[in-house]
Amino acid sequence: MKFEITILGCGSATPTLLRNPTSQVVNVMERYLMIDCAEGTQLQLRKYKVAFQKIDHIFISHLHGDHYLGLVGLISSFHLFGRNKTLHIYGPSDLERIIFDQLKASKTFLCYQVEFHSLDSNKSELIFEDSILEVHTIPLKHRIYCNGFLFKEKKKERRLSKELIAKYNIPVEMMPKLKNGEDPIGKGWEDIKNQDLTLPAHRSRSYAFCSDTLYTESIVPLIQNVDVLYHESTFLNDMKDRAKSTFHSTAQQAANIALLANVNSLLLGHYSARYNSSIDFENEAKEVFKNVKAVRDGDVISIPI
Amino acid sequence: MKFEITILGCGSATPTLLRNPTSQVVNVMERYLMIDCAEGTQLQLRKYKVAFQKIDHIFISHLHGDHYLGLVGLISSFHLFGRNKTLHIYGPSDLERIIFDQLKASKTFLCYQVEFHSLDSNKSELIFEDSILEVHTIPLKHRIYCNGFLFKEKKKERRLSKELIAKYNIPVEMMPKLKNGEDPIGKGWEDIKNQDLTLPAHRSRSYAFCSDTLYTESIVPLIQNVDVLYHESTFLNDMKDRAKSTFHSTAQQAANIALLANVNSLLLGHYSARYNSSIDFENEAKEVFKNVKAVRDGDVISIPI
Repeated sequence: MKFEITILGCGSATPTLLRNPTSQVVNVMERYLMIDCAEGTQLQLRKYKVAFQKIDHIFISHLHGDHYLGLVGLISSFHLFGRNKTLHIYGPSDLERIIFDQLKASKTFLCYQVEFHSLDSNKSELIFEDSILEVHTIPLKHRIYCNGFLFKEKKKERRLSKELIAKYNIPVEMMPKLKNGEDPIGKGWEDIKNQDLTLPAHRSRSYAFCSDTLYTESIVPLIQNVDVLYHESTFLNDMKDRAKSTFHSTAQQAANIALLANVNSLLLGHYSARYNSSIDFENEAKEVFKNVKAVRDGDVISIPI
Repeated sequence: MKFEITILGCGSATPTLLRNPTSQVVNVMERYLMIDCAEGTQLQLRKYKVAFQKIDHIFISHLHGDHYLGLVGLISSFHLFGRNKTLHIYGPSDLERIIFDQLKASKTFLCYQVEFHSLDSNKSELIFEDSILEVHTIPLKHRIYCNGFLFKEKKKERRLSKELIAKYNIPVEMMPKLKNGEDPIGKGWEDIKNQDLTLPAHRSRSYAFCSDTLYTESIVPLIQNVDVLYHESTFLNDMKDRAKSTFHSTAQQAANIALLANVNSLLLGHYSARYNSSIDFENEAKEVFKNVKAVRDGDVISIPI
């Protein structure tokens, strides 16, 4: 029942020996979803032992190099490893041309399918959905077209109590209805209610990734009450003018957003390479919002059931 | 009077924790010339403390990802560091479009000039020349258009003997002619020959980089007698069929080329990721050609004066 985020890179702009630029893998019950894929991401996947052949969906926030320059290399490596599953890529429309132009120049004829999902809306959209999970875009305000992503478990079913099911001799075909909250119908069960046979559903967990962006409260309704918010903090607040002019945020601003959106916990990242330590980011944010962590490459954040 | 080669990556195909894919920096008397620029090269430059802002020329052999996917990131980082010198890039013509398309998508307006030198000939060409150095292409046989590069010091001048110049009272304006091998002309110098005032010129050093290629003796005349030859050895000889079908070479084949071209020393690299150790490559080649080194990332090879 995992919902965990592995930080593959939390630096910005340029790779350094201290931090790789942005990439993360979100594992929701063995669905491996990658967010951004900076140069060097393949090595980070190896270093942090992420089962990267399980990645079937890659979400690219925007086309600054520190968020996608590792993508063509990863696509090529999947080919070399003999992948045969379709890989879904979601990103700004120019990315499709950029990928396929490079594959063409290298005369690489992939042994698997790449399905590109072009993002160009300025409104939040549902871009991925399966039986348990939804992914929505979070339009951000950056120098170029940029989206964050909201990963949200779907509403879950009530849980059957095996013991009570046995006790009341409930047949298998009635179980989907019970999970759905309905009362059992039939002779002998007249006085039995759904609550007598089931436990409440587990809550639906959620993770919002927001990088890169100017401080903007427009995202607050989209990320309201999420379990975990990752919000970029390229700068500390003494550089808030620089943050504004480069369409980035400070740690204090990230904490403001966390507070307004009433999230459970806040992750900070995307630090400018001028900062060697991330502890100042955490301290600055804590003055506004208590449950905060300034992430480092290799961190794994679990959202409990 | 340095002529040294720093190996930034000697693996092939995909980055691993053991080896980065291909990149090298050749330093010829403080001219920093980069060959290939695989993903992760920026980090290798940092790791091995190469003064990478000094790089003014980048030579790309071909458009397989393991030879150029770090280039756009490096170009972007130069921009972030406020570079103002022109950067010269030499590579297959498609590369120009690939670079500028990505810069356009990220709305990056570089603060320095990139001058692209398109390579499309199948014959060896002089592609760079300054007062001391020449770079020529070495057409290779690979699945796609591919060049090696020959770095060759120009013929050097004779060296003045300070002691004798002083003894015979030779004026400054005569020195260029003496360096050029001419005898001194003028009253009092009738019996003095050039050899009385000068020492022989230092020899001209040379380095040939050949990766990726099928075994081909067509390159032998172009690399005859070089000081150092880097020749790819993707496979050991027990996989020579695989080498042939993928347009690569084995260690034994690389050694054959070294022998035929009468080079002074041979460097091996571009090992397939299936090999953990490079020592078997060295041993295999040594049976054919004695002066061989299987390189590792971070190796620095100096060519003495």
